[in-house]
Amino acid sequence: MFERNRSAEIVADSFSNTENERLREILVSLVQHLHAFAKDVELGQGELDAGIDFLTRTGQKCDDTRQEFVLLSDILGLSMLVDSIDNDRGEKTTDSTVLGPFHMVQSPVRQLGETIALAEGGVPTLVTGQVLSADGDELPGAVVDVWQADENGFYDVQIPEQVPERNLRGLFACDNNGKFAFRTILPAAYPIPQDGPVGQLLTATARHPYRPAHIHFIVEADGYASLTTHIFVAGSPYLDSDAVFGVKESLVLEFAECTDAALAAEYDMPVPFRHAHVEIRLAKAK
Amino acid sequence: MFERNRSAEIVADSFSNTENERLREILVSLVQHLHAFAKDVELGQGELDAGIDFLTRTGQKCDDTRQEFVLLSDILGLSMLVDSIDNDRGEKTTDSTVLGPFHMVQSPVRQLGETIALAEGGVPTLVTGQVLSADGDELPGAVVDVWQADENGFYDVQIPEQVPERNLRGLFACDNNGKFAFRTILPAAYPIPQDGPVGQLLTATARHPYRPAHIHFIVEADGYASLTTHIFVAGSPYLDSDAVFGVKESLVLEFAECTDAALAAEYDMPVPFRHAHVEIRLAKAK
Repeated sequence: MFERNRSAEIVADSFSNTENERLREILVSLVQHLHAFAKDVELGQGELDAGIDFLTRTGQKCDDTRQEFVLLSDILGLSMLVDSIDNDRGEKTTDSTVLGPFHMVQSPVRQLGETIALAEGGVPTLVTGQVLSADGDELPGAVVDVWQADENGFYDVQIPEQVPERNLRGLFACDNNGKFAFRTILPAAYPIPQDGPVGQLLTATARHPYRPAHIHFIVEADGYASLTTHIFVAGSPYLDSDAVFGVKESLVLEFAECTDAALAAEYDMPVPFRHAHVEIRLAKAK
Repeated sequence: MFERNRSAEIVADSFSNTENERLREILVSLVQHLHAFAKDVELGQGELDAGIDFLTRTGQKCDDTRQEFVLLSDILGLSMLVDSIDNDRGEKTTDSTVLGPFHMVQSPVRQLGETIALAEGGVPTLVTGQVLSADGDELPGAVVDVWQADENGFYDVQIPEQVPERNLRGLFACDNNGKFAFRTILPAAYPIPQDGPVGQLLTATARHPYRPAHIHFIVEADGYASLTTHIFVAGSPYLDSDAVFGVKESLVLEFAECTDAALAAEYDMPVPFRHAHVEIRLAKAK
């Protein structure tokens, strides 16, 4: 029977016959923290009702192309925390960060040095890089998947009538030294979707919805753990207040103005252009 | 920028400009407990994804007549915990318990002693009672709203084509001594709805979905705090394992077999019948 002082214990006991031991462990911990939260703030009935209404509307905002609960997890820092737990490999490798909601279509396969910018406009940018092991071994077989927002902060899937399909996406096979390069435009900072319950929460708490400018990466090589990360544009606004807490110091790179004529010629870049170089170190697969 | 060891602090800080001080307090505590939970169980990406899928389906199961998040709150004991926080008045008054999801239609006004059982079947039952203050003063103006499941465990709104409208519901005005009485049938234990995510969770954790037999009450009197509670039928199965943790020792009453000819005559009951007597003490309004 219910007793307030033993409420978490009583509910935790109800899960004692759960066959899946991991599920039981998670539910018992969840109940303990949930009850501790309600007691700490002395949650009232009206407040519980408001919370239930918020969660209901969050679920009902979700469809095939919108995941409002992922957004909620993101703005509460839960996505980044789980990412850091999941990628805690103890090796000196490149930091991971959140996948984000825009990796919903397959990137087109492109040749090294090719451009991913299929529309007009934007600041010409060259990204060069190399994929290595933690020990610095070159990984010739590595594959690099990149996607990014445009100069106005939009992904192709957000403005399908305004830009060619798969604009600013590319899948690159590295060369024999694990090196890769692609041309693009400088991405812009942008707001996460604000027309749902999560947007209302940000407004109610005077939080801005912006993410600093970045390019997404998924990097894979046989025998190594897949890495999901971003590179952030140094100097972008919101680096210190990313709405989803995705920034790590190690992932902020200079996209420096470059006038190197040889490099410009090699990649057919107009001078001047922006240039970022990224070294990606992968952990061994478990 | 994100740091795993300071994750909750960093996210809590993001709420520091929230104008509504209570909202800020709740969100800061929620973030602290949410992050502590994820760290305690070392929540993995696949587990977070599964949780987000569960919450999404829970929201999408809700409609005008179904509230799956209330059910989730109920089976996690959160509803009862909040009920106990909200009704912590420190006076010697009748215990509260959860409202439940079936108080969705207005109870019909009935005369004292009238029956609320409009269909055939069931064990004839008489409920008598009195509404008092904590000090034992009779409350003549009290109003008692009751609703219950039938002998098969169904509320009228669950089987609208099988029973008359508003079957087993009644709104009674007490007499000059705060006394009330109504005829009914013995309620049966019943399962909470199992065709949604919450039902799947109960199945996955080998928990049964049943609630012990009970009659719902909302009792109101001018100058006193409204009381939402049940009386439970002593001897009913599941008293020790109510799926929503609603049972309190003080709310379990004998529905004893009765052969009192005078009482039978007064309320037009067939002999033998079941009889329960309930004394309800209300706290003063704040």
